Amino acid sequence: MSTTSPKGFSAAGVAAGLKSSGDPDVAVVLNTGPDDAAAAVFTTNRFPAAPVQWSRQVLAGQRARAVVLNSGGANACTGPEGFQDTHATAEHAAGELGIGAIDVAVASTGLIGLRLPMAKLVAGVTAAVEKLSEDGGADAARAIMTTDSVPKTTVQQRDGWTVGGMAKGAGMLAPSLATMLVVLTTDAAADPDVLQRALEAATAVSFERVDSDGCLSTNDTVIVLANGASGVTPSGEELTEALTAAATDLAMQLLADAEGSTKDIAITVRNAATVEDALTAGRACARNNLLKTALFGNDPNWGRVLAAIGTTDAAFEADRVDVTINGVTVCRGGSIGDPREGVDLTGREITIDVDLRAGGEQATIWTNDLSIAYVHENSAYSS
Amino acid sequence: MSTTSPKGFSAAGVAAGLKSSGDPDVAVVLNTGPDDAAAAVFTTNRFPAAPVQWSRQVLAGQRARAVVLNSGGANACTGPEGFQDTHATAEHAAGELGIGAIDVAVASTGLIGLRLPMAKLVAGVTAAVEKLSEDGGADAARAIMTTDSVPKTTVQQRDGWTVGGMAKGAGMLAPSLATMLVVLTTDAAADPDVLQRALEAATAVSFERVDSDGCLSTNDTVIVLANGASGVTPSGEELTEALTAAATDLAMQLLADAEGSTKDIAITVRNAATVEDALTAGRACARNNLLKTALFGNDPNWGRVLAAIGTTDAAFEADRVDVTINGVTVCRGGSIGDPREGVDLTGREITIDVDLRAGGEQATIWTNDLSIAYVHENSAYSS
Repeated sequence: MSTTSPKGFSAAGVAAGLKSSGDPDVAVVLNTGPDDAAAAVFTTNRFPAAPVQWSRQVLAGQRARAVVLNSGGANACTGPEGFQDTHATAEHAAGELGIGAIDVAVASTGLIGLRLPMAKLVAGVTAAVEKLSEDGGADAARAIMTTDSVPKTTVQQRDGWTVGGMAKGAGMLAPSLATMLVVLTTDAAADPDVLQRALEAATAVSFERVDSDGCLSTNDTVIVLANGASGVTPSGEELTEALTAAATDLAMQLLADAEGSTKDIAITVRNAATVEDALTAGRACARNNLLKTALFGNDPNWGRVLAAIGTTDAAFEADRVDVTINGVTVCRGGSIGDPREGVDLTGREITIDVDLRAGGEQATIWTNDLSIAYVHENSAYSS
Repeated sequence: MSTTSPKGFSAAGVAAGLKSSGDPDVAVVLNTGPDDAAAAVFTTNRFPAAPVQWSRQVLAGQRARAVVLNSGGANACTGPEGFQDTHATAEHAAGELGIGAIDVAVASTGLIGLRLPMAKLVAGVTAAVEKLSEDGGADAARAIMTTDSVPKTTVQQRDGWTVGGMAKGAGMLAPSLATMLVVLTTDAAADPDVLQRALEAATAVSFERVDSDGCLSTNDTVIVLANGASGVTPSGEELTEALTAAATDLAMQLLADAEGSTKDIAITVRNAATVEDALTAGRACARNNLLKTALFGNDPNWGRVLAAIGTTDAAFEADRVDVTINGVTVCRGGSIGDPREGVDLTGREITIDVDLRAGGEQATIWTNDLSIAYVHENSAYSS
């Protein structure tokens, strides 16, 4: 049910012909109230796509009634004309819904540097609005897929209120240019500032700790809509907890479906001086192509773990670092530990624990391996 | 002829059995004087291999008589025992050569986290010393190869003096963990401080601007030996020019032989506010897996160029950036430029010019594509 699981939301997904495959490619999520609090986080890429530029303006007011999403084209790096296309999309949806354009956020995903076929898109928005339904969450989730192999949805039930959500993305935050789009909905009542803080806290420990290929999209968008239809006003802590659960659930689904991946890798850096140090060291591993190819090859190559964290400024002494891969401490004190032959990497799940012995903080970064299929998919994506 | 082209140097390469293939794996380069000035740059990785730790001590005195190199094992992350192995290697070579151990630099390349078979290595050093010859440069260059498909050598003739050199490396600075090792020799006379500055200037614009896969080895070493045998004392500028020519020649050979690569890519960032900005933007492209896979697929995906530089803090306005790929300006003002169909990427050489319109500085970073063969080679390397 995803975005339509909380009370007071309807959604739809339709095929508008943006995708040459004929698969669904336009989705609308509508908040039917009573409240219209909204919060969002967007890509930090300095080439934000037109829909990101537009939606930032919408969200500046901390309110939104609807989100229009399309796959089949990112509308990124398309200049003033591309921005006008997004604006026209919002205007058209607003007209169909009887609300203001400034209440309509837009999100797009697909190839960069191509204009959208506006006649098809506008007709698709009309069709989606006509089809809006309280059972439409699954259709909407399907319509935002690009190279995703499965739709991603979540439902988190709390005491009298619910968080729902959908996501697309076959790379990650720092994601594939195939982009991550997420819409979360809740029938909780929430002050917009509380909602924004809760969303930022939730994304900081979920989407922002997944680093599949180190690439940052021009289109990444996470939006949450809160309508108070449940009559419940959770505390900021309760809201943060539920949004974090929803975001983490979706993030793990993104990881499991990452383009061409054969491994889900959790890199935990323990006993770091600071959380930032732990994240820096974890990300250095997650972005090290030699480590990622080794893991694709079922090779517990701990030297590549050390070489990766050896490029960072995280606090540690080289002769005190331990590395444990799938439970075997293959490196002790920066040198040879237990035999690497004891490490079984044949499954999809891999855990790498790095003990820096430099403090009391820790953090986990999730990533994937670098596979032949990843290269194949990403070299053939637009050609 | 490589390292033995300048007067007063001898070299040798032998098969000591460190490589299971039986290929040559131990090299010695000897400076027979009269001077013994030396300079070096080493990896900045915080897990420096034992030979790097040792050679830093040797080079601290700005003098060296010989370099002992081995392939078939990096002797990295091997603890105090590994350092003792390197020390013993230097002591043994020094004994055979009748010089002090502190005059013998050591460099190693191969797998991390394995001890070297010292009996074989020591016997190999003895054999190499016995075989030292003024014609031995080619043999030495061959003995330091790992996944290299060809030996890399250079000779730069100047007015009465010569620079010679050899390199191994099938990744780069920031290099593959397969490591970059370089020995340069010259019969020029040089003050050690002048030699060090000239070497640093040469590597800064050659090896340090090649970024094949963003990975920084534990073993990277560039050493230059200067013996004055020519009787010529070039100026610092002349020395820098010749060392830069030698280093650039070797760097381009490394690029052309990078593991599994099918493209040599020169990314030039023009009209940057600072050289640092140009390098930052260029490196962001060189390390972007999605761009590198697109180029492997002959896809002029300029959106991935923008998305890569959009993650940096280089000074630019998003709507003023142009991107030209192999002569076609596919992106103008951060938006759609000339048709991408006009770009021919079928050859090995690719040039990407990014115009930031933010100043008057520029720099070029050289990299390779990310190919299926890269993944294959690096996933199978140790297993």
